Amino acid sequence: MVPQEVENSTPQTFMESVKRKWNEGKFVCVGLDSQFDKIPDFLKEGKSREDAIFEFNKAIIDATQDLTAVYKPNAAFYEAEGEQGVNALRRTIGYIKETTDVPVILDAKRGDIGNTNDGYVKAAFDEMKADAITVHGYLGKEAMQPFLDRREKGVFVLARTSNKGAGEFQDLMVDGKPVYQIVSENVANNWNENGNVGLVMGATSPEELKRIREILPEVPLLIPGVGAQGGTAEEVVPVAKDRFLINSSRGIIFASNGQDFAQVARQEAEKLHIQIGASMTY
Amino acid sequence: MVPQEVENSTPQTFMESVKRKWNEGKFVCVGLDSQFDKIPDFLKEGKSREDAIFEFNKAIIDATQDLTAVYKPNAAFYEAEGEQGVNALRRTIGYIKETTDVPVILDAKRGDIGNTNDGYVKAAFDEMKADAITVHGYLGKEAMQPFLDRREKGVFVLARTSNKGAGEFQDLMVDGKPVYQIVSENVANNWNENGNVGLVMGATSPEELKRIREILPEVPLLIPGVGAQGGTAEEVVPVAKDRFLINSSRGIIFASNGQDFAQVARQEAEKLHIQIGASMTY
Repeated sequence: MVPQEVENSTPQTFMESVKRKWNEGKFVCVGLDSQFDKIPDFLKEGKSREDAIFEFNKAIIDATQDLTAVYKPNAAFYEAEGEQGVNALRRTIGYIKETTDVPVILDAKRGDIGNTNDGYVKAAFDEMKADAITVHGYLGKEAMQPFLDRREKGVFVLARTSNKGAGEFQDLMVDGKPVYQIVSENVANNWNENGNVGLVMGATSPEELKRIREILPEVPLLIPGVGAQGGTAEEVVPVAKDRFLINSSRGIIFASNGQDFAQVARQEAEKLHIQIGASMTY
Repeated sequence: MVPQEVENSTPQTFMESVKRKWNEGKFVCVGLDSQFDKIPDFLKEGKSREDAIFEFNKAIIDATQDLTAVYKPNAAFYEAEGEQGVNALRRTIGYIKETTDVPVILDAKRGDIGNTNDGYVKAAFDEMKADAITVHGYLGKEAMQPFLDRREKGVFVLARTSNKGAGEFQDLMVDGKPVYQIVSENVANNWNENGNVGLVMGATSPEELKRIREILPEVPLLIPGVGAQGGTAEEVVPVAKDRFLINSSRGIIFASNGQDFAQVARQEAEKLHIQIGASMTY
């Protein structure tokens, strides 16, 4: 279950930080999709939106950090609340860095032409202080170079997503190969000079996940779609093998909206952690 | 040159606003890619970053609004400056709405699963007050429905982009058709129940643009890549025919960094406006 390489020194890059978590047997990615409307009401009383979102995240982080391989806030839920939401996101990432050694993937799904991506790189890595980001690969490697050039950061490229309609373009066949496979192969084989890329492969498509893992045994996989979206660790872990992060968002953070929300979030994270361990039978 | 339908009443939707501009003979999209480092130094003296960016944009808007069909700020350049940049973006869109009848496309290239896109919809349309947005289509129509459902707003889906490496995935051939063509056909034919979608087609690929326009004569095209990126109106206009917006960003807004920057921006916008008119020979 523990990967071959063992890191003893302090991690210098996102991928080293993740490998340390893997070596500790941790594979759970807690998705901090902290939509304001779903935060327990009692946390909102007498507080600004910014403080309510931050306090919610802080409680979840305190309760789950020892089980968590990576935190993954999705930018959309913060941007939806304007300045207060974005400030809450910045404070959340700051809090994770101050109080834990868990790296942070900013799930922002960015992707523009090269000189514009410089702006997103600055925003995500320098301004927000995220350790990694999710991106769209549609513009090709040449455009995404500003992300790839940051060797200390991680870049997860969307391959096969977890939504019901993901196949519309991702499953189109090009000379016998689906588009998501070509994206996966190009990214893992040609975009990875700095050893900092991974793929997003939805848990709701275990057949597709299996195919990618067989072709690309080494590439780190970020696997959303477990929990609320219907994927299960039991299905996914045996095909993903290792070098993966399994994300659950709503299934963990919104499992209870009572006073016990953080404790219940921990229970759900622990359940997933145990399911993953139990499914690693090799 | 003027499209058949003439709108006399006040536009109720983004597409109606754009049609009014087309009826006025306006096709120039001014790209407000207002990167802080490139703003003239004299504008920065004694000002916050937020104020400097906003004052720059305000001067450009005042100088160009009578020639401009659409303004298109790219979110990346604002997010790169954190809270101050994002506030400057919000104030810029507010200023355009207060002082002009020019609609605003937020060039944000977003795209996530459905419930997450709800957050981006709220951020772009309700919080930022943009009239339209650019998106990645990779997750398919089912995921992008929250954008499409906003019938009063515009949604431009990336088809063939203007960067050098755009072909890596966009030109892959699926049963004799390139991926960008399949994206274009699906979007124009199947995503458009509300008449609010358009395509992003780079000016640096006029052959591809011609192919799409021949197949899809009606779909509005947002055409970046003129100016700094090397495309020209003379090449693009005869193939785009009408129902297009030609964007220039750096070529207009950063044409001078002296005291005359806004006046020179106007001259460049006017030059493009005239080139477009002169190239519409049919």
